[in-house]
Amino acid sequence: MGEALSTFYSKGNLNTMKNVTLYHHGPSTCSQKVRIILELKNISYESKIIDLLAGEQHAPEYVKLNPNHLVPTLVTDDGVLIESSVINEYLDDNFPGIPAKPSDPFNIAKMRLWVKYIDVYHPQCGSITYGIGMRNILIQKPKDELDQEIASIPDLIKRKNRRDLVDMGLDAPVLIEALKQTEVLLDKLEQELENSDWLFNNSFGIADAATLPYIIRMEQLALGELFSSTKRPNINNWYERIKNMDIFENAVTSYIPEALIGVLTKFGNDQKDKIFKIMEKK
Amino acid sequence: MGEALSTFYSKGNLNTMKNVTLYHHGPSTCSQKVRIILELKNISYESKIIDLLAGEQHAPEYVKLNPNHLVPTLVTDDGVLIESSVINEYLDDNFPGIPAKPSDPFNIAKMRLWVKYIDVYHPQCGSITYGIGMRNILIQKPKDELDQEIASIPDLIKRKNRRDLVDMGLDAPVLIEALKQTEVLLDKLEQELENSDWLFNNSFGIADAATLPYIIRMEQLALGELFSSTKRPNINNWYERIKNMDIFENAVTSYIPEALIGVLTKFGNDQKDKIFKIMEKK
Repeated sequence: MGEALSTFYSKGNLNTMKNVTLYHHGPSTCSQKVRIILELKNISYESKIIDLLAGEQHAPEYVKLNPNHLVPTLVTDDGVLIESSVINEYLDDNFPGIPAKPSDPFNIAKMRLWVKYIDVYHPQCGSITYGIGMRNILIQKPKDELDQEIASIPDLIKRKNRRDLVDMGLDAPVLIEALKQTEVLLDKLEQELENSDWLFNNSFGIADAATLPYIIRMEQLALGELFSSTKRPNINNWYERIKNMDIFENAVTSYIPEALIGVLTKFGNDQKDKIFKIMEKK
Repeated sequence: MGEALSTFYSKGNLNTMKNVTLYHHGPSTCSQKVRIILELKNISYESKIIDLLAGEQHAPEYVKLNPNHLVPTLVTDDGVLIESSVINEYLDDNFPGIPAKPSDPFNIAKMRLWVKYIDVYHPQCGSITYGIGMRNILIQKPKDELDQEIASIPDLIKRKNRRDLVDMGLDAPVLIEALKQTEVLLDKLEQELENSDWLFNNSFGIADAATLPYIIRMEQLALGELFSSTKRPNINNWYERIKNMDIFENAVTSYIPEALIGVLTKFGNDQKDKIFKIMEKK
Protein backbone atom coordinates (compact mmCIF):
# COMPACT_ATOMS: atom_id res chain seq x y z
CA MET A 1 0.00 0.00 0.00
CA GLY A 2 1.47 3.38 -1.02
CA GLU A 3 1.96 6.05 1.65
CA ALA A 4 -0.86 8.29 0.36
CA LEU A 5 -3.30 5.39 0.31
CA SER A 6 -2.26 4.16 3.75
CA THR A 7 -2.85 7.67 5.11
CA PHE A 8 -6.26 7.72 3.47
CA TYR A 9 -7.12 4.41 5.10
CA SER A 10 -6.16 5.69 8.54
CA LYS A 11 -8.94 5.48 11.10
CA GLY A 12 -10.71 8.76 10.53
CA ASN A 13 -10.84 8.58 6.76
CA LEU A 14 -12.07 5.02 6.59
CA ASN A 15 -15.05 6.10 8.63
CA THR A 16 -15.97 8.72 6.06
CA MET A 17 -15.66 6.34 3.09
CA LYS A 18 -19.30 5.31 3.39
CA ASN A 19 -22.22 7.69 3.35
CA VAL A 20 -24.15 7.20 6.58
CA THR A 21 -27.56 8.73 7.33
CA LEU A 22 -29.36 8.27 10.64
CA TYR A 23 -33.09 8.87 10.96
CA HIS A 24 -33.69 9.39 14.66
CA HIS A 25 -35.48 11.29 17.42
CA GLY A 26 -33.62 13.12 20.16
CA PRO A 27 -35.00 11.58 23.37
CA SER A 28 -35.84 8.12 21.89
CA THR A 29 -33.92 5.46 23.85
CA CYS A 30 -33.16 3.35 20.77
CA SER A 31 -31.98 6.43 18.84
CA GLN A 32 -29.64 7.23 21.74
CA LYS A 33 -28.16 3.71 21.54
CA VAL A 34 -27.13 4.14 17.90
CA ARG A 35 -25.93 7.75 18.27
CA ILE A 36 -23.71 6.59 21.14
CA ILE A 37 -21.98 3.94 19.00
CA LEU A 38 -21.64 6.31 16.03
CA GLU A 39 -20.00 8.81 18.38
CA LEU A 40 -17.82 6.20 20.12
CA LYS A 41 -16.49 5.00 16.77
CA ASN A 42 -16.16 8.52 15.41
CA ILE A 43 -18.36 7.83 12.38
CA SER A 44 -19.62 10.97 10.59
CA TYR A 45 -23.27 10.78 9.63
CA GLU A 46 -26.06 12.90 8.23
CA SER A 47 -28.69 13.48 10.90
CA LYS A 48 -32.37 13.39 9.93
CA ILE A 49 -34.73 14.07 12.81
CA ILE A 50 -38.06 12.20 12.81
CA ASP A 51 -40.48 14.12 15.03
CA LEU A 52 -42.40 11.36 16.82
CA LEU A 53 -44.75 13.84 18.50
CA ALA A 54 -45.74 15.19 15.07
CA GLY A 55 -46.25 11.60 13.82
CA GLU A 56 -43.48 11.76 11.20
CA GLN A 57 -42.74 8.07 11.79
CA HIS A 58 -46.04 7.32 10.02
CA ALA A 59 -45.21 9.34 6.88
CA PRO A 60 -45.42 7.02 3.82
CA GLU A 61 -41.90 7.96 2.69
CA TYR A 62 -40.45 7.02 6.07
CA VAL A 63 -42.47 3.79 6.39
CA LYS A 64 -40.83 2.63 3.16
CA LEU A 65 -37.52 2.75 5.06
CA ASN A 66 -38.87 1.49 8.39
CA PRO A 67 -42.02 -0.65 7.99
CA ASN A 68 -42.31 -0.82 11.80
CA HIS A 69 -42.97 2.97 12.03
CA LEU A 70 -40.11 3.25 14.53
CA VAL A 71 -36.81 5.07 14.97
CA PRO A 72 -33.91 4.74 14.39
CA THR A 73 -33.22 3.78 10.78
CA LEU A 74 -29.69 3.69 9.37
CA VAL A 75 -29.06 4.17 5.67
CA THR A 76 -25.59 3.49 4.23
CA ASP A 77 -24.29 2.75 0.74
CA ASP A 78 -24.93 -0.92 1.60
CA GLY A 79 -28.66 -0.37 2.17
CA VAL A 80 -31.24 0.27 4.88
CA LEU A 81 -31.09 -1.21 8.39
CA ILE A 82 -33.52 -1.00 11.31
CA GLU A 83 -33.45 -2.20 14.95
CA SER A 84 -30.82 -0.51 17.13
CA SER A 85 -29.22 -3.75 18.35
CA VAL A 86 -28.72 -4.98 14.77
CA ILE A 87 -27.49 -1.56 13.63
CA ASN A 88 -24.91 -1.33 16.42
CA GLU A 89 -23.35 -4.71 15.63
CA TYR A 90 -23.27 -3.73 11.96
CA LEU A 91 -21.50 -0.46 12.78
CA ASP A 92 -18.92 -2.33 14.81
CA ASP A 93 -18.41 -4.99 12.12
CA ASN A 94 -18.10 -2.44 9.38
CA PHE A 95 -16.28 0.58 10.69
CA PRO A 96 -12.91 0.66 12.39
CA GLY A 97 -12.24 2.88 15.37
CA ILE A 98 -12.72 1.94 19.01
CA PRO A 99 -14.10 -1.63 19.08
CA ALA A 100 -17.54 -1.82 20.70
CA LYS A 101 -17.52 -5.61 21.16
CA PRO A 102 -15.31 -7.88 23.25
CA SER A 103 -12.74 -9.88 21.30
CA ASP A 104 -13.64 -13.43 22.38
CA PRO A 105 -16.74 -15.35 21.24
CA PHE A 106 -17.97 -16.23 24.73
CA ASN A 107 -18.02 -12.63 25.92
CA ILE A 108 -19.58 -11.57 22.63
CA ALA A 109 -22.32 -14.13 23.32
CA LYS A 110 -22.81 -12.78 26.85
CA MET A 111 -22.99 -9.26 25.44
CA ARG A 112 -25.66 -10.41 22.95
CA LEU A 113 -27.61 -12.14 25.71
CA TRP A 114 -27.61 -8.90 27.69
CA VAL A 115 -28.69 -6.83 24.67
CA LYS A 116 -31.52 -9.33 24.03
CA TYR A 117 -32.60 -8.93 27.66
CA ILE A 118 -32.54 -5.14 27.35
CA ASP A 119 -34.61 -5.35 24.14
CA VAL A 120 -37.22 -7.33 26.11
CA TYR A 121 -37.10 -4.75 28.94
CA HIS A 122 -37.54 -1.85 26.49
CA PRO A 123 -41.39 -1.60 26.52
CA GLN A 124 -41.31 -1.18 30.32
CA CYS A 125 -39.46 2.09 29.81
CA GLY A 126 -42.30 3.25 27.58
CA SER A 127 -44.85 2.46 30.29
CA ILE A 128 -42.80 4.31 32.89
CA THR A 129 -42.20 7.39 30.75
CA TYR A 130 -45.83 7.47 29.70
CA GLY A 131 -47.51 6.59 32.96
CA ILE A 132 -45.39 8.80 35.20
CA GLY A 133 -44.70 11.68 32.82
CA MET A 134 -46.58 12.09 29.55
CA ARG A 135 -50.03 11.13 30.87
CA ASN A 136 -50.09 14.24 33.04
CA ILE A 137 -49.88 16.36 29.91
CA LEU A 138 -52.41 14.24 28.01
CA ILE A 139 -55.11 14.27 30.67
CA GLN A 140 -55.25 18.05 30.30
CA LYS A 141 -56.50 17.65 26.70
CA PRO A 142 -60.22 17.68 25.83
CA LYS A 143 -61.68 14.17 26.37
CA ASP A 144 -62.74 13.75 22.71
CA GLU A 145 -59.32 14.61 21.39
CA LEU A 146 -57.60 12.26 23.82
CA ASP A 147 -60.01 9.40 23.07
CA GLN A 148 -59.40 9.82 19.37
CA GLU A 149 -55.63 9.83 19.87
CA ILE A 150 -55.76 6.57 21.81
CA ALA A 151 -58.20 4.99 19.34
CA SER A 152 -55.69 5.64 16.54
CA ILE A 153 -53.13 3.21 18.02
CA PRO A 154 -53.36 0.19 15.68
CA ASP A 155 -52.06 -2.54 18.04
CA LEU A 156 -54.84 -3.84 20.33
CA ILE A 157 -52.60 -4.51 23.33
CA LYS A 158 -50.69 -1.22 23.07
CA ARG A 159 -54.02 0.63 22.81
CA LYS A 160 -55.36 -1.05 25.94
CA ASN A 161 -52.12 -0.32 27.83
CA ARG A 162 -52.13 3.33 26.77
CA ARG A 163 -55.74 3.66 27.93
CA ASP A 164 -54.84 2.16 31.32
CA LEU A 165 -51.76 4.36 31.69
CA VAL A 166 -53.76 7.51 30.95
CA ASP A 167 -56.75 6.56 33.12
CA MET A 168 -54.91 5.02 36.07
CA GLY A 169 -51.34 6.34 36.12
CA LEU A 170 -49.47 4.60 38.93
CA ASP A 171 -52.45 2.28 39.53
CA ALA A 172 -52.22 0.80 36.03
CA PRO A 173 -51.14 -2.87 36.26
CA VAL A 174 -48.85 -2.39 33.25
CA LEU A 175 -46.98 0.40 35.07
CA ILE A 176 -46.73 -1.56 38.33
CA GLU A 177 -45.27 -4.47 36.34
CA ALA A 178 -42.88 -2.09 34.54
CA LEU A 179 -41.59 -0.76 37.86
CA LYS A 180 -41.02 -4.31 39.11
CA GLN A 181 -39.13 -5.20 35.93
CA THR A 182 -37.06 -2.04 36.39
CA GLU A 183 -36.07 -3.22 39.86
CA VAL A 184 -35.00 -6.54 38.30
CA LEU A 185 -32.98 -4.71 35.64
CA LEU A 186 -31.20 -2.56 38.23
CA ASP A 187 -30.36 -5.58 40.39
CA LYS A 188 -28.96 -7.46 37.39
CA LEU A 189 -26.96 -4.41 36.26
CA GLU A 190 -25.55 -3.81 39.75
CA GLN A 191 -24.42 -7.43 39.82
CA GLU A 192 -22.87 -7.40 36.32
CA LEU A 193 -20.84 -4.32 37.24
CA GLU A 194 -19.55 -5.90 40.48
CA ASN A 195 -16.23 -6.98 39.02
CA SER A 196 -16.07 -5.00 35.83
CA ASP A 197 -16.05 -1.34 34.83
CA TRP A 198 -17.95 -2.06 31.60
CA LEU A 199 -20.48 -4.62 30.42
CA PHE A 200 -18.73 -7.71 28.98
CA ASN A 201 -15.91 -5.63 27.55
CA ASN A 202 -12.65 -3.89 28.57
CA SER A 203 -14.05 -0.54 27.52
CA PHE A 204 -17.43 1.08 26.91
CA GLY A 205 -19.23 -1.07 24.31
CA ILE A 206 -22.48 -2.15 22.73
CA ALA A 207 -23.99 -3.56 25.95
CA ASP A 208 -23.26 -0.30 27.81
CA ALA A 209 -24.82 1.68 24.94
CA ALA A 210 -27.92 -0.54 25.07
CA THR A 211 -28.40 0.04 28.80
CA LEU A 212 -27.46 3.68 29.31
CA PRO A 213 -30.63 5.30 27.86
CA TYR A 214 -32.82 3.57 30.46
CA ILE A 215 -30.64 4.78 33.32
CA ILE A 216 -30.75 8.30 31.89
CA ARG A 217 -34.55 8.09 31.62
CA MET A 218 -34.85 7.00 35.25
CA GLU A 219 -32.76 9.97 36.30
CA GLN A 220 -34.90 12.29 34.17
CA LEU A 221 -37.97 10.89 35.95
CA ALA A 222 -36.41 11.91 39.30
CA LEU A 223 -35.65 8.27 40.14
CA GLY A 224 -31.87 8.68 40.40
CA GLU A 225 -31.98 7.56 44.04
CA LEU A 226 -32.42 4.01 42.71
CA PHE A 227 -28.73 4.05 41.79
CA SER A 228 -27.28 6.39 44.39
CA SER A 229 -23.74 5.77 45.66
CA THR A 230 -25.17 4.04 48.73
CA LYS A 231 -28.06 2.11 47.13
CA ARG A 232 -26.35 0.69 44.03
CA PRO A 233 -22.72 1.90 44.03
CA ASN A 234 -21.61 -0.10 40.98
CA ILE A 235 -24.25 1.49 38.75
CA ASN A 236 -23.46 4.87 40.30
CA ASN A 237 -19.76 4.56 39.46
CA TRP A 238 -20.47 3.25 35.96
CA TYR A 239 -22.84 6.16 35.30
CA GLU A 240 -20.32 8.70 36.62
CA ARG A 241 -17.62 7.23 34.36
CA ILE A 242 -19.93 7.62 31.37
CA LYS A 243 -20.91 11.18 32.29
CA ASN A 244 -17.22 12.06 32.03
CA MET A 245 -17.00 10.76 28.46
CA ASP A 246 -17.56 13.00 25.43
CA ILE A 247 -20.22 10.64 24.08
CA PHE A 248 -22.51 11.58 26.96
CA GLU A 249 -23.01 15.14 25.82
CA ASN A 250 -22.38 14.65 22.11
CA ALA A 251 -24.69 11.69 21.56
CA VAL A 252 -27.22 12.04 24.36
CA THR A 253 -27.86 15.25 26.31
CA SER A 254 -27.33 17.62 23.38
CA TYR A 255 -30.26 15.92 21.62
CA ILE A 256 -32.75 16.03 24.51
CA PRO A 257 -34.70 19.26 25.06
CA GLU A 258 -34.24 20.74 28.57
CA ALA A 259 -37.97 21.49 28.65
CA LEU A 260 -38.86 17.82 28.23
CA ILE A 261 -36.50 16.82 31.04
CA GLY A 262 -38.06 19.53 33.21
CA VAL A 263 -41.55 18.12 32.68
CA LEU A 264 -40.51 14.51 33.30
CA THR A 265 -38.59 15.45 36.45
CA LYS A 266 -41.47 17.50 37.83
CA PHE A 267 -44.01 14.70 37.44
CA GLY A 268 -41.50 12.14 38.72
CA ASN A 269 -40.81 14.24 41.82
CA ASP A 270 -44.54 14.71 42.50
CA GLN A 271 -45.11 10.92 42.57
CA LYS A 272 -41.77 9.70 43.89
CA ASP A 273 -43.01 8.40 47.23
CA LYS A 274 -45.68 6.25 45.64
CA ILE A 275 -43.26 5.00 42.95
CA PHE A 276 -40.69 3.88 45.52
CA LYS A 277 -43.42 2.19 47.59
CA ILE A 278 -44.49 0.15 44.54
CA MET A 279 -40.88 -0.81 43.82
CA GLU A 280 -40.20 -1.89 47.39
CA LYS A 281 -43.18 -4.28 47.38
CA LYS A 282 -41.84 -7.41 45.70
CA MET B 1 3.12 -25.66 13.57
CA GLY B 2 4.43 -29.27 13.56
CA GLU B 3 2.72 -31.83 11.33
CA ALA B 4 1.09 -33.77 14.18
CA LEU B 5 -0.34 -30.60 15.69
CA SER B 6 -1.60 -29.32 12.34
CA THR B 7 -3.37 -32.66 11.82
CA PHE B 8 -4.91 -32.37 15.26
CA TYR B 9 -6.16 -28.88 14.42
CA SER B 10 -7.83 -30.06 11.21
CA LYS B 11 -11.54 -29.37 11.00
CA GLY B 12 -12.96 -32.44 12.69
CA ASN B 13 -10.60 -32.44 15.64
CA LEU B 14 -10.93 -28.75 16.36
CA ASN B 15 -14.63 -29.35 16.85
CA THR B 16 -13.96 -31.96 19.52
CA MET B 17 -11.44 -29.81 21.41
CA LYS B 18 -14.16 -28.28 23.52
CA ASN B 19 -16.59 -30.25 25.61
CA VAL B 20 -20.09 -29.35 24.47
CA THR B 21 -23.27 -30.37 26.27
CA LEU B 22 -26.74 -29.50 24.99
CA TYR B 23 -29.76 -29.57 27.28
CA HIS B 24 -32.75 -29.81 24.97
CA HIS B 25 -36.15 -31.30 24.22
CA GLY B 26 -36.89 -33.24 21.02
CA PRO B 27 -39.84 -31.34 19.50
CA SER B 28 -39.01 -27.88 20.98
CA THR B 29 -38.55 -25.42 18.12
CA CYS B 30 -35.64 -23.60 19.77
CA SER B 31 -33.90 -26.90 20.57
CA GLN B 32 -34.23 -27.85 16.91
CA LYS B 33 -32.56 -24.57 15.88
CA VAL B 34 -29.42 -25.34 17.91
CA ARG B 35 -29.27 -29.06 17.02
CA ILE B 36 -29.42 -28.05 13.34
CA ILE B 37 -26.38 -25.77 13.63
CA LEU B 38 -24.44 -28.31 15.74
CA GLU B 39 -25.14 -30.89 13.02
CA LEU B 40 -24.39 -28.50 10.14
CA LYS B 41 -21.00 -27.67 11.68
CA ASN B 42 -20.32 -31.26 12.62
CA ILE B 43 -19.83 -30.46 16.31
CA SER B 44 -19.97 -33.47 18.64
CA TYR B 45 -21.97 -32.87 21.80
CA GLU B 46 -23.34 -34.66 24.79
CA SER B 47 -27.13 -34.73 24.61
CA LYS B 48 -29.16 -34.22 27.79
CA ILE B 49 -32.91 -34.42 27.27
CA ILE B 50 -35.07 -32.13 29.41
CA ASP B 51 -38.58 -33.58 29.49
CA LEU B 52 -40.81 -30.50 29.29
CA LEU B 53 -43.99 -32.55 29.76
CA ALA B 54 -42.60 -33.92 33.04
CA GLY B 55 -41.63 -30.37 34.13
CA GLU B 56 -37.88 -31.06 34.21
CA GLN B 57 -37.24 -27.46 33.08
CA HIS B 58 -38.37 -26.37 36.56
CA ALA B 59 -35.93 -28.65 38.45
CA PRO B 60 -33.72 -26.47 40.73
CA GLU B 61 -30.52 -27.95 39.25
CA TYR B 62 -31.61 -27.02 35.74
CA VAL B 63 -32.86 -23.55 36.70
CA LYS B 64 -29.33 -22.79 37.91
CA LEU B 65 -28.21 -23.24 34.28
CA ASN B 66 -31.25 -21.65 32.67
CA PRO B 67 -32.99 -19.12 34.96
CA ASN B 68 -35.74 -18.72 32.34
CA HIS B 69 -36.89 -22.38 32.80
CA LEU B 70 -36.51 -22.91 29.05
CA VAL B 71 -34.66 -25.12 26.59
CA PRO B 72 -32.11 -25.21 25.08
CA THR B 73 -29.05 -24.55 27.25
CA LEU B 74 -25.52 -24.98 25.91
CA VAL B 75 -22.64 -25.74 28.26
CA THR B 76 -19.06 -25.60 26.98
CA ASP B 77 -15.67 -25.23 28.65
CA ASP B 78 -16.24 -21.46 28.26
CA GLY B 79 -19.39 -21.51 30.37
CA VAL B 80 -23.18 -21.63 30.11
CA LEU B 81 -25.21 -20.01 27.33
CA ILE B 82 -28.97 -19.74 26.80
CA GLU B 83 -31.21 -18.38 23.99
CA SER B 84 -30.97 -20.28 20.71
CA SER B 85 -30.19 -17.22 18.59
CA VAL B 86 -27.25 -16.26 20.84
CA ILE B 87 -26.05 -19.88 21.02
CA ASN B 88 -26.07 -20.30 17.24
CA GLU B 89 -23.95 -17.21 16.62
CA TYR B 90 -21.56 -18.38 19.34
CA LEU B 91 -21.26 -21.81 17.71
CA ASP B 92 -20.48 -20.19 14.37
CA ASP B 93 -17.95 -17.78 15.89
CA ASN B 94 -16.23 -20.48 17.85
CA PHE B 95 -16.19 -23.65 15.81
CA PRO B 96 -14.86 -24.07 12.30
CA GLY B 97 -16.68 -26.22 9.76
CA ILE B 98 -19.34 -25.04 7.33
CA PRO B 99 -19.92 -21.32 8.02
CA ALA B 100 -23.48 -20.58 9.12
CA LYS B 101 -23.27 -16.81 8.56
CA PRO B 102 -22.75 -14.75 5.42
CA SER B 103 -19.29 -13.21 5.05
CA ASP B 104 -20.20 -9.52 4.65
CA PRO B 105 -21.45 -7.26 7.47
CA PHE B 106 -24.57 -6.04 5.66
CA ASN B 107 -25.89 -9.54 5.00
CA ILE B 108 -24.96 -10.55 8.55
CA ALA B 109 -27.08 -7.61 9.74
CA LYS B 110 -29.97 -8.69 7.52
CA MET B 111 -29.64 -12.23 8.88
CA ARG B 112 -29.77 -10.87 12.45
CA LEU B 113 -32.80 -8.75 11.63
CA TRP B 114 -34.56 -11.85 10.32
CA VAL B 115 -33.61 -13.92 13.38
CA LYS B 116 -34.91 -11.11 15.62
CA TYR B 117 -38.18 -11.14 13.67
CA ILE B 118 -38.43 -14.93 14.06
CA ASP B 119 -37.78 -14.60 17.83
CA VAL B 120 -40.73 -12.20 18.02
CA TYR B 121 -42.89 -14.61 15.97
CA HIS B 122 -41.96 -17.55 18.21
CA PRO B 123 -44.82 -17.29 20.79
CA GLN B 124 -47.36 -17.51 17.95
CA CYS B 125 -46.12 -21.01 17.25
CA GLY B 126 -46.85 -21.91 20.86
CA SER B 127 -50.42 -20.64 20.53
CA ILE B 128 -50.93 -22.61 17.32
CA THR B 129 -49.46 -25.85 18.66
CA TYR B 130 -51.42 -25.49 21.87
CA GLY B 131 -54.72 -24.23 20.54
CA ILE B 132 -54.97 -26.60 17.57
CA GLY B 133 -53.24 -29.65 19.03
CA MET B 134 -52.49 -29.98 22.73
CA ARG B 135 -55.77 -28.51 24.01
CA ASN B 136 -57.66 -31.46 22.59
CA ILE B 137 -55.70 -33.76 24.88
CA LEU B 138 -55.99 -31.42 27.87
CA ILE B 139 -59.76 -30.97 27.72
CA GLN B 140 -60.10 -34.71 28.28
CA LYS B 141 -58.54 -34.33 31.76
CA PRO B 142 -60.67 -33.94 34.92
CA LYS B 143 -61.60 -30.24 35.32
CA ASP B 144 -59.89 -29.89 38.72
CA GLU B 145 -56.61 -31.25 37.45
CA LEU B 146 -56.67 -29.02 34.36
CA ASP B 147 -57.56 -25.91 36.39
CA GLN B 148 -54.66 -26.60 38.74
CA GLU B 149 -52.25 -27.08 35.85
CA ILE B 150 -53.23 -23.74 34.32
CA ALA B 151 -53.13 -21.99 37.72
CA SER B 152 -49.50 -23.09 38.15
CA ILE B 153 -48.31 -20.94 35.21
CA PRO B 154 -46.52 -18.06 36.94
CA ASP B 155 -46.78 -15.40 34.20
CA LEU B 156 -50.17 -13.63 34.31
CA ILE B 157 -50.48 -13.09 30.55
CA LYS B 158 -49.35 -16.61 29.61
CA ARG B 159 -51.85 -18.02 32.13
CA LYS B 160 -54.71 -16.02 30.63
CA ASN B 161 -53.70 -17.05 27.10
CA ARG B 162 -53.51 -20.72 28.07
CA ARG B 163 -56.95 -20.52 29.65
CA ASP B 164 -58.38 -18.98 26.47
CA LEU B 165 -56.67 -21.54 24.22
CA VAL B 166 -58.04 -24.42 26.28
CA ASP B 167 -61.54 -22.98 26.64
CA MET B 168 -61.97 -21.55 23.15
CA GLY B 169 -59.59 -23.30 20.78
CA LEU B 170 -59.88 -21.67 17.35
CA ASP B 171 -62.15 -18.97 18.78
CA ALA B 172 -59.42 -17.71 21.16
CA PRO B 173 -58.30 -14.22 20.07
CA VAL B 174 -54.66 -15.16 20.78
CA LEU B 175 -54.91 -18.08 18.32
CA ILE B 176 -56.64 -16.00 15.65
CA GLU B 177 -53.86 -13.41 15.99
CA ALA B 178 -51.22 -16.18 15.83
CA LEU B 179 -52.68 -17.50 12.58
CA LYS B 180 -52.64 -14.00 11.09
CA GLN B 181 -49.00 -13.54 12.13
CA THR B 182 -48.22 -16.92 10.57
CA GLU B 183 -49.68 -15.70 7.28
CA VAL B 184 -47.39 -12.63 7.55
CA LEU B 185 -44.37 -14.85 8.24
CA LEU B 186 -45.11 -17.09 5.26
CA ASP B 187 -45.54 -14.09 2.93
CA LYS B 188 -42.24 -12.58 4.13
CA LEU B 189 -40.45 -15.91 3.77
CA GLU B 190 -41.84 -16.52 0.27
CA GLN B 191 -40.57 -13.08 -0.72
CA GLU B 192 -37.10 -13.49 0.84
CA LEU B 193 -36.64 -16.77 -1.06
CA GLU B 194 -37.66 -15.22 -4.40
CA ASN B 195 -34.11 -14.66 -5.61
CA SER B 196 -32.11 -16.80 -3.24
CA ASP B 197 -31.92 -20.48 -2.33
CA TRP B 198 -31.05 -19.69 1.30
CA LEU B 199 -31.76 -16.89 3.73
CA PHE B 200 -29.11 -14.15 3.50
CA ASN B 201 -26.37 -16.67 2.75
CA ASN B 202 -24.92 -18.76 -0.09
CA SER B 203 -25.67 -21.96 1.77
CA PHE B 204 -27.95 -23.12 4.59
CA GLY B 205 -27.24 -20.91 7.60
CA ILE B 206 -28.42 -19.47 10.90
CA ALA B 207 -31.48 -17.70 9.45
CA ASP B 208 -32.64 -20.92 7.76
CA ALA B 209 -32.12 -22.83 11.02
CA ALA B 210 -34.17 -20.22 12.89
CA THR B 211 -37.09 -20.51 10.47
CA LEU B 212 -37.23 -24.21 9.65
CA PRO B 213 -38.80 -25.49 12.93
CA TYR B 214 -41.92 -23.34 12.40
CA ILE B 215 -42.40 -24.67 8.86
CA ILE B 216 -42.00 -28.21 10.17
CA ARG B 217 -44.55 -27.51 12.91
CA MET B 218 -47.08 -26.20 10.37
CA GLU B 219 -46.64 -29.36 8.33
CA GLN B 220 -47.09 -31.48 11.47
CA LEU B 221 -50.35 -29.60 12.14
CA ALA B 222 -51.60 -30.64 8.67
CA LEU B 223 -51.12 -27.08 7.36
CA GLY B 224 -48.57 -28.00 4.67
CA GLU B 225 -50.94 -26.67 1.97
CA LEU B 226 -49.89 -23.18 3.07
CA PHE B 227 -46.59 -23.76 1.28
CA SER B 228 -47.60 -26.14 -1.49
CA SER B 229 -45.77 -25.91 -4.83
CA THR B 230 -48.64 -23.85 -6.23
CA LYS B 231 -49.41 -21.63 -3.22
CA ARG B 232 -45.88 -20.65 -2.15
CA PRO B 233 -43.41 -22.30 -4.52
CA ASN B 234 -40.29 -20.64 -3.09
CA ILE B 235 -40.93 -21.98 0.40
CA ASN B 236 -41.86 -25.34 -1.09
CA ASN B 237 -38.54 -25.58 -2.98
CA TRP B 238 -36.53 -24.38 0.03
CA TYR B 239 -38.21 -26.98 2.25
CA GLU B 240 -37.61 -29.76 -0.30
CA ARG B 241 -33.91 -28.79 -0.51
CA ILE B 242 -33.67 -29.02 3.28
CA LYS B 243 -35.48 -32.37 3.43
CA ASN B 244 -32.73 -33.75 1.21
CA MET B 245 -29.98 -32.66 3.63
CA ASP B 246 -28.66 -34.98 6.36
CA ILE B 247 -29.40 -32.36 9.03
CA PHE B 248 -33.12 -32.81 8.47
CA GLU B 249 -33.20 -36.34 9.82
CA ASN B 250 -30.20 -36.15 12.14
CA ALA B 251 -31.12 -32.93 13.95
CA VAL B 252 -34.89 -32.80 13.57
CA THR B 253 -37.09 -35.77 12.74
CA SER B 254 -35.06 -38.36 14.65
CA TYR B 255 -35.79 -36.36 17.84
CA ILE B 256 -39.56 -35.98 17.37
CA PRO B 257 -41.79 -38.90 18.43
CA GLU B 258 -44.00 -40.23 15.62
CA ALA B 259 -46.88 -40.48 18.09
CA LEU B 260 -46.76 -36.74 18.80
CA ILE B 261 -46.78 -35.92 15.09
CA GLY B 262 -49.73 -38.28 14.67
CA VAL B 263 -51.73 -36.46 17.34
CA LEU B 264 -50.90 -32.98 15.99
CA THR B 265 -51.73 -34.00 12.42
CA LYS B 266 -55.04 -35.57 13.43
CA PHE B 267 -56.26 -32.48 15.29
CA GLY B 268 -54.93 -30.22 12.53
CA ASN B 269 -56.80 -32.20 9.88
CA ASP B 270 -60.04 -32.14 11.89
CA GLN B 271 -59.98 -28.33 12.04
CA LYS B 272 -58.27 -27.49 8.76
CA ASP B 273 -61.23 -25.85 7.05
CA LYS B 274 -61.84 -23.45 9.92
CA ILE B 275 -58.10 -22.68 10.22
CA PHE B 276 -57.79 -21.77 6.54
CA LYS B 277 -60.94 -19.63 6.75
CA ILE B 278 -59.39 -17.64 9.63
CA MET B 279 -56.15 -17.21 7.69
CA GLU B 280 -57.91 -16.04 4.53
CA LYS B 281 -59.73 -13.27 6.41
CA LYS B 282 -57.24 -10.43 6.58
